[in-house]
Amino acid sequence: MKVKNAAGRTVETTIAGTTFKPFTGARKYGFASKLTTLEKALKDCRLKNGMTVSFHHQLRNGDFVVNQTLAAIKELGVKDIRLAQTALFTVHQPVIEYIKEGIVTRIEGSLNDTVGDFVSKHPLKSPVILRSHGGRWAAVKTGELHVDIAVIAASVADERGNCTGLVGNSAFGPISYSQVDAMHADHVIVVTDNVVEYPCKPQEITERYVDYVAQIDQIGDPKQIVSGSLKITDDSEKLNIARQCVDLMDAVGLIKDGMVFQSGSGGISLAAVKYLGERLEEKNVVAACATGGLTKFIIDIYKAGRVKKMYYSQVFDTESIQFIQNDPSMPADIGHYADPTSKGRTADSLDAVVLGATEVDVRYNVNVNTHSDGRLLHGIGGHQDTAAGADLTIITTPIFRKTNPIIRENVTTITTPGSVIDAVVTNRGIAINPIRKDFLKKIKGTIDTVPIEELKRMAYDATGTPQEPHLGDEIIGIIKWFDGTVLDMVRVVKEESP
Amino acid sequence: MKVKNAAGRTVETTIAGTTFKPFTGARKYGFASKLTTLEKALKDCRLKNGMTVSFHHQLRNGDFVVNQTLAAIKELGVKDIRLAQTALFTVHQPVIEYIKEGIVTRIEGSLNDTVGDFVSKHPLKSPVILRSHGGRWAAVKTGELHVDIAVIAASVADERGNCTGLVGNSAFGPISYSQVDAMHADHVIVVTDNVVEYPCKPQEITERYVDYVAQIDQIGDPKQIVSGSLKITDDSEKLNIARQCVDLMDAVGLIKDGMVFQSGSGGISLAAVKYLGERLEEKNVVAACATGGLTKFIIDIYKAGRVKKMYYSQVFDTESIQFIQNDPSMPADIGHYADPTSKGRTADSLDAVVLGATEVDVRYNVNVNTHSDGRLLHGIGGHQDTAAGADLTIITTPIFRKTNPIIRENVTTITTPGSVIDAVVTNRGIAINPIRKDFLKKIKGTIDTVPIEELKRMAYDATGTPQEPHLGDEIIGIIKWFDGTVLDMVRVVKEESP
Repeated sequence: MKVKNAAGRTVETTIAGTTFKPFTGARKYGFASKLTTLEKALKDCRLKNGMTVSFHHQLRNGDFVVNQTLAAIKELGVKDIRLAQTALFTVHQPVIEYIKEGIVTRIEGSLNDTVGDFVSKHPLKSPVILRSHGGRWAAVKTGELHVDIAVIAASVADERGNCTGLVGNSAFGPISYSQVDAMHADHVIVVTDNVVEYPCKPQEITERYVDYVAQIDQIGDPKQIVSGSLKITDDSEKLNIARQCVDLMDAVGLIKDGMVFQSGSGGISLAAVKYLGERLEEKNVVAACATGGLTKFIIDIYKAGRVKKMYYSQVFDTESIQFIQNDPSMPADIGHYADPTSKGRTADSLDAVVLGATEVDVRYNVNVNTHSDGRLLHGIGGHQDTAAGADLTIITTPIFRKTNPIIRENVTTITTPGSVIDAVVTNRGIAINPIRKDFLKKIKGTIDTVPIEELKRMAYDATGTPQEPHLGDEIIGIIKWFDGTVLDMVRVVKEESP
Repeated sequence: MKVKNAAGRTVETTIAGTTFKPFTGARKYGFASKLTTLEKALKDCRLKNGMTVSFHHQLRNGDFVVNQTLAAIKELGVKDIRLAQTALFTVHQPVIEYIKEGIVTRIEGSLNDTVGDFVSKHPLKSPVILRSHGGRWAAVKTGELHVDIAVIAASVADERGNCTGLVGNSAFGPISYSQVDAMHADHVIVVTDNVVEYPCKPQEITERYVDYVAQIDQIGDPKQIVSGSLKITDDSEKLNIARQCVDLMDAVGLIKDGMVFQSGSGGISLAAVKYLGERLEEKNVVAACATGGLTKFIIDIYKAGRVKKMYYSQVFDTESIQFIQNDPSMPADIGHYADPTSKGRTADSLDAVVLGATEVDVRYNVNVNTHSDGRLLHGIGGHQDTAAGADLTIITTPIFRKTNPIIRENVTTITTPGSVIDAVVTNRGIAINPIRKDFLKKIKGTIDTVPIEELKRMAYDATGTPQEPHLGDEIIGIIKWFDGTVLDMVRVVKEESP
């Protein structure tokens, strides 16, 4: 069919079997500010009962944004919100009140301490769903976790929504968790306390994804956002565990030119990174890359020329913040790091990773989510993602803590299945997963190993056989493997439990 | 229902009305090289008859990748390919042979000179579809233009697919056109002649999107990829037009602190940028940002402190390549620059843009696609995108070229509708679109204007009334407005035409 379009041209509406729409007119797009208040932004995003609101956790225990957003939601009279934060911290204790008031009724995301303790005893409308970093990214990307409104904290933003977490008074590091929310949420609000002249530089989230820029007084407490400096443990037993991790990496032949390793912020992990740096120096080896979170310790190795490049998805201390402000070229957002639905994850390049545990069982299953009393107090983080990516996945732990055996017959909750755990390095010996025959062969004569059942026996000898936690039938939490399947369920903790 | 999952845990498959899949097992992901040959990569992507293969054009007239890929496709015996390149150049003349052989049967993308001339006279199976930069991005994103295999040239890549165009012997600037192909194509092949140690730094396309890395001898001829240096026109008439553009920007009040302007690579545009730099200096004004393509001229303004930030989607000369290798922090991919389906484009921040034309009509419609004889010899580029984004969109042109009137009653083809064109600056005066009453008011007493009909009359006086091109009925090309609607159609040029 021939029609005259808005430009006055006669055009066909069907050509070679394809249908075309005629031009209906052009308009100037032009520049419009997106600057507003948090409350008005939520209103303009048509917030209503039952919606899902997401946040990242990079302001850590200094975060003011989650609490302020929930206060604004309450002010607007909206209820039945599903929180889809990447993690909650102690600072988010007010969430308990919002749960009691029916404002927050469901949570998909990590819970730490206070909120985790509360939810463990007072089930929500449906179980809390915990995912790894990569699993969450995939869930938001595929629509399994649909976000209605993404609230993205930024330390600096311009009035069009270009923003970053790398600079400014409240700098917290890269906004590495929220790109997927920005791309897939129906509405996106950037929240900042520092609006700069257009265009903001650098840019981690760009204006193309942003509906509103909400200006608030302060997004967080800088002193709680990043540590001034991280301290390595001075516990000689822990230092010894860290040193054995490096010995093990060396024995299986991974400490060589081109090595890729993960650097973390935990006490033993920090020490392991430091010792690894020394070993690189001793052996005159240059690693290709470090991934994960930046700390002074990994930057020292970089400055010494012992690792060529650093991917960072988080930064943990002041020195690292200053470092990336001068060299922001290798941020790895969580999709790059760990999206299991992608064609390649940086986590897959890892030769070795050192991870923690709250419990490990004799089938090498690891629990990092619940305490042995059943309370859901920790997230998964990158535990699953890196365990499945690294060639050598090491779990470090003492065999018992106080009266609680850590190496045990059954973990209370499975966070990461034993099939991707290769070694457990403890204060009483190293156990190698028998499925890693290659490693067992390589370390023969260099590293003494001990059967994991033996580590369990030693633990039980010291603590006695652990008691079952006092749990009810109701499911309060679901632990997902990063492919979206259910690895384990967390049951309600009976209040009268000891 | 309760089931025992692969971790040995009993889990529910339905909780609170939601269905969950039980864990089926974990495996190590690990590191695998994607390095292969171009032919094998195409085969492993299951290339078959009828598929759509995309390319970016940042190797410009130095590109070897399109021709080599088509040679490999021919070798594999595959036909009926739809090319979805962002643009073709003279170097792509072999495409004509592939068309004759039935290997290429359809094209959605810009055609320059030889292939455009051929297609104008020899219609393909369905019309060539031309889109602006932003329009193409949106079409690939929404699935209107579905890409089966994206072939992405990179000057440097690692064996996992992380890559860039910013460094290396064949550096061409940012890979700003292909992110959308990487994200939405079924298969992605990175083609490079320079495989570096993992991980490649910087990274413009990341491994998450890449299936294969095809190594070839040479991706292009560096001398043809970027200009050694661009020269400003020394034609005094053109220089005068450029100067008047800056006078006009000034008269309407746009040359002020915080200004945002587009810098281009055309002869008059280059001169206008240079004059604008001088005017910023004279008025002691600091612009906020320049967008578009980088050249020595805009970098000089930046170094002089007269523009604070530069977005770049392309780089045009050797000096600019060197510049971004040391400061790669503000690349703007085409989605950021111009995606009309996004929530904000950098093009919308433009105070002023200076664009060219092959024809302009008395309703301010502009043609940049066809010559007045009807041949489809140029792409749309960012013409539509910036015209709709900028507050002041200036078209520069002489009123006639040789015996051909440029200002005329009707353009042969509409590329950009007059409703988003604000001014036409010519060698015989400045015409302001009467819909911009605000501008007419502001320039009163400062800038002399002339009705566009008068410019047309002067042109016709010199050249005579232009003859209609000798066109047939068959449609060989479709010009889309960036929202996907049909702005105009291009008809077959009769071979016997003069």
